[in-house]
Amino acid sequence: MKYGRTYNFSAGPAMMPEPVLEEIRDEMMNYRGSGMCVMEMSHRSKVFEDIINEAEADLRDLMGIPDNYKVLFIQGGGTLQFSMVPMNLMKNGVACYIETGAWSKKAIAEAKKYGEVRVVASSKDKNFTYVPDCSDLDIPEEADYVYICENETIHGTTFFKLPNTKGKILVSDQSSMFLSRPCNVSDYGLIWGGVQKNVGPAGLAIVIIREDLIRDDLDDKLPIYLNYKTHADSDSLYNTPNCWSIYCCGKVFKYLKKLGGLEAMNKLNEEKAAVLYDFLDSSKLFKGAVVKKDRSLMNVPFVTPSKEQDAAVVAATKAAGFDNLKGHKSVGGLRASIYNAMPKEGVEALVAFLKEYEAKNA
Amino acid sequence: MKYGRTYNFSAGPAMMPEPVLEEIRDEMMNYRGSGMCVMEMSHRSKVFEDIINEAEADLRDLMGIPDNYKVLFIQGGGTLQFSMVPMNLMKNGVACYIETGAWSKKAIAEAKKYGEVRVVASSKDKNFTYVPDCSDLDIPEEADYVYICENETIHGTTFFKLPNTKGKILVSDQSSMFLSRPCNVSDYGLIWGGVQKNVGPAGLAIVIIREDLIRDDLDDKLPIYLNYKTHADSDSLYNTPNCWSIYCCGKVFKYLKKLGGLEAMNKLNEEKAAVLYDFLDSSKLFKGAVVKKDRSLMNVPFVTPSKEQDAAVVAATKAAGFDNLKGHKSVGGLRASIYNAMPKEGVEALVAFLKEYEAKNA
Repeated sequence: MKYGRTYNFSAGPAMMPEPVLEEIRDEMMNYRGSGMCVMEMSHRSKVFEDIINEAEADLRDLMGIPDNYKVLFIQGGGTLQFSMVPMNLMKNGVACYIETGAWSKKAIAEAKKYGEVRVVASSKDKNFTYVPDCSDLDIPEEADYVYICENETIHGTTFFKLPNTKGKILVSDQSSMFLSRPCNVSDYGLIWGGVQKNVGPAGLAIVIIREDLIRDDLDDKLPIYLNYKTHADSDSLYNTPNCWSIYCCGKVFKYLKKLGGLEAMNKLNEEKAAVLYDFLDSSKLFKGAVVKKDRSLMNVPFVTPSKEQDAAVVAATKAAGFDNLKGHKSVGGLRASIYNAMPKEGVEALVAFLKEYEAKNA
Repeated sequence: MKYGRTYNFSAGPAMMPEPVLEEIRDEMMNYRGSGMCVMEMSHRSKVFEDIINEAEADLRDLMGIPDNYKVLFIQGGGTLQFSMVPMNLMKNGVACYIETGAWSKKAIAEAKKYGEVRVVASSKDKNFTYVPDCSDLDIPEEADYVYICENETIHGTTFFKLPNTKGKILVSDQSSMFLSRPCNVSDYGLIWGGVQKNVGPAGLAIVIIREDLIRDDLDDKLPIYLNYKTHADSDSLYNTPNCWSIYCCGKVFKYLKKLGGLEAMNKLNEEKAAVLYDFLDSSKLFKGAVVKKDRSLMNVPFVTPSKEQDAAVVAATKAAGFDNLKGHKSVGGLRASIYNAMPKEGVEALVAFLKEYEAKNA
């Protein structure tokens, strides 16, 4: 690769498109004649307002976000969203969560602080290797929302079909699949995504929320930063936002549009994932961890027959210039995260390496 | 200036040292042979752990932070700290606040959500143009802490002498003076600073907290991200932090050390501020807004005799390449923020311009 860059299979923060990094580098000392770097700009200046407005407009365009949804740029990552969602959306004090892995579990643990959590479906029985059937869930009348982690980064599963929420609001953590495929925003009440996996630099979560879910009665009840209304009323400029991440994400939005938008990304992601899954399905040494129908196109966990061999393969890939293939400590094995910015050549090179490794170690 | 850069007097985000920006630019495509940009690195990787550990070590060195204080890198800016301070430190439910301007007022408004706030001193009577005498405050026995905004960014005042807290913990918002002068950390229970004024890119607050103030009994009571213990127990890596800002701030810490540390910065800042204050004191057109003894070395608000002339001067400075001199909308007039990274030449050039303006418009 150019600049001696490596194929980085990190689950996040993760690769960004090289042309985007080049642009950022070239604008570092003086952004478009402003006389400053974006890091030095007042968030109240015209030049920065253009940056944030353009980022939002491009995101709206990419995802087809309807006018009755607000786009919010909020710090604190997914962890803060685990709290903000129940703190803002629990009116009746009851919410339904679907438990599909590590990240939905974290969301559940946090939501329990604010009300009653009903786990209406779970794949815990098979170690989160599949997505449960969500076509006929037992959703109580008083439920405020139904929550999913649409792509489990650690366990490598994805919802290819959204749950039947029986008319309740759907809330989705899209962090590790954000902008990887088309998304019908109207199907959701709230979508949030930490950007550090599939978009840009860490320190920013993007929240897309239907306007009628933003409440007027929480001003005295919530920490001001944790009230969606604070951010919605000020177009994400109540306080100084993570300006740099917004700037970088904005560049990625433009880059994705240039590549053909989310339909094109989905096609590319399907092709990329197929290269890896086809190999895993044909391999005698390596085995994918997830049932076929629910396999994530973004995070691909796989194993060898033993922990020792897992570790040996991780070391070998590292030595060969493939980075961050070690599986998450909670599940072990290996994991290749192949987000939007991972080139197809990167996946092909990894598969070629694994094939050779398998042949040598047969 | 090099690269066609302007003298940017923004109150924050604000100028960063040019050599730091150059280094960041040069490491953009491949950070020191890692094969990736810092924005692309797993926060769990060795290469990033070195970055965050080195940043903390350099900050400890610069400020002389004792071993019984934790350094935390937290997202959400000052606004989140306004909530986190009372949520974590109010045990008895009573706190004393000193009201010196816009930012202490915001802290007070937020703290009232969590307990009783006693405003034990205020400079409201003279529109926050001075720092009240805090040598003998009426601090109740049950007070959990005494809170100050050590440098009011909007009103341009600074505490040159810390309040007598009568043995209670001192909590200080140092955002707009962070690392501008030596600081005896042991005088405080908690210091926090948003980095976007005097250090690096927005989206990060640095919290320096005495270990015994971190509580074990809040796990179920606070949103997990708002518990200092969450960050302290994980060395600021509970979730993905604002890696980029930590990286950039780390570079600024090294740069300040190279310049001679905080003693040297203080000397430089005194010299820089003197250039501007000496001019204001001698001018017939311009007048500093703050009483002499409490003048900030960082934020210098000043006025002409009329709003119309204020606006005319702002427009003239802007046309001459001096940026962001408009005073905050809440107080009007002009304001020059001259943080660490503003070169002395910048202040001299501004004063030369204002002198000429005054002569022409006499």
